[in-house]
Amino acid sequence: MWTVKVVGLGVVAFSSLELIVWLLRRLRPERPRNEVLFFPSELACVEHLYTLPPSAAPSASAAPSHSCLCSLPHGVETSFSRFLRHVLSASSSLDLCVFAFSNMDLSRAVLVLHSRGVTVRVLSDKNYIAITGTQIGVLRKAGICVRSNGNSVHMHHKFAVVDGRLLLTGSLNWTLNAVQNNMENILITEEPDLVRPFIKEFCRLWEHSDPVRRHKPAARVDAGTQG
Amino acid sequence: MWTVKVVGLGVVAFSSLELIVWLLRRLRPERPRNEVLFFPSELACVEHLYTLPPSAAPSASAAPSHSCLCSLPHGVETSFSRFLRHVLSASSSLDLCVFAFSNMDLSRAVLVLHSRGVTVRVLSDKNYIAITGTQIGVLRKAGICVRSNGNSVHMHHKFAVVDGRLLLTGSLNWTLNAVQNNMENILITEEPDLVRPFIKEFCRLWEHSDPVRRHKPAARVDAGTQG
Repeated sequence: MWTVKVVGLGVVAFSSLELIVWLLRRLRPERPRNEVLFFPSELACVEHLYTLPPSAAPSASAAPSHSCLCSLPHGVETSFSRFLRHVLSASSSLDLCVFAFSNMDLSRAVLVLHSRGVTVRVLSDKNYIAITGTQIGVLRKAGICVRSNGNSVHMHHKFAVVDGRLLLTGSLNWTLNAVQNNMENILITEEPDLVRPFIKEFCRLWEHSDPVRRHKPAARVDAGTQG
Repeated sequence: MWTVKVVGLGVVAFSSLELIVWLLRRLRPERPRNEVLFFPSELACVEHLYTLPPSAAPSASAAPSHSCLCSLPHGVETSFSRFLRHVLSASSSLDLCVFAFSNMDLSRAVLVLHSRGVTVRVLSDKNYIAITGTQIGVLRKAGICVRSNGNSVHMHHKFAVVDGRLLLTGSLNWTLNAVQNNMENILITEEPDLVRPFIKEFCRLWEHSDPVRRHKPAARVDAGTQG
């Protein structure tokens, strides 16, 4: 009889322990990725990043391998290389909303994603699109969907959403000057409360800049808009 | 004897339940505040915000009261009014690092904080400081510590840290144009992984822009730098 009682108590205690372990697992979900990068960035070769598989997302310990013979430093992880890794980690979609886009390394990254079948959508400022050195025309020629704001409002955002889950946003325009010469920041987060509003805003702006939907005479539809 | 056994089992079960409730409380800490604001903002009166106590931090349901007789809409919560509420919620410190600062409502908010005894530190771009319409001179005249970058690097940040715990950052410069005319964003977060790097970077830049510490001849110390 005592054995039964002891076993009974043991079962109750064990069940409680099991429940506690289960709760621990349920209530401590994996923390979303959060990272901040500051610029100007050191100069370093980023050639190897373009051939990495999308699954090779940045990690704190990531150290770039090197087989390139260019004169830039190799094996150095910089703010820019980490930023580029995040962009290149896209495996299904990249939604980009950026005022100025003239950085050729970032343009190449977007073209690589497009060639891999990643759905790329680019929103840019209608006035900036016409500026010398912009990469918007290069993207458009490659068949990437590019739209611009059709009204007088200045499009000053600098954010991207990778695979609908990772937000890259900050003060940094996608230009060489911003990366190499300016004090800038990029905040990277998977926090749903922060990512969701940017996705919603991108969709709103994307719809709003659809040349078909614009309530304007056809002749006034921005010539610099595709897709 | 049976009573003792039943009570014993009851105590074990109750203790387990107590433990689970305690764990639930411990493992579900209050989630850090996360919010995103988009601009351009609607126009609305913000007069009442300057007299609110610092503890009146924005909440989702906050609806402004109104006793002002100006011609702007009253009782309307806008992106700008929420942003202003966050700035005015500072009770101990405001560290501001912003490229362009010409918005008079935001300048007034910073002056109000200074008059309340909040420690305000302002970092701005040395070239922008000389531009017509900047509020940097107004802040300096009021006795607020203002520093600027002393080198050729362009200071393009637009972030603020309130009370060392709340980060306000994004594409938005502190100008009237950015608030009323541009598509902009401000991300607001208390997430320590995101706030800490900005605090560290602010302190680094603040030290770096200390005219006393600059390793330059005295005559070359930026005349526009105080504190």
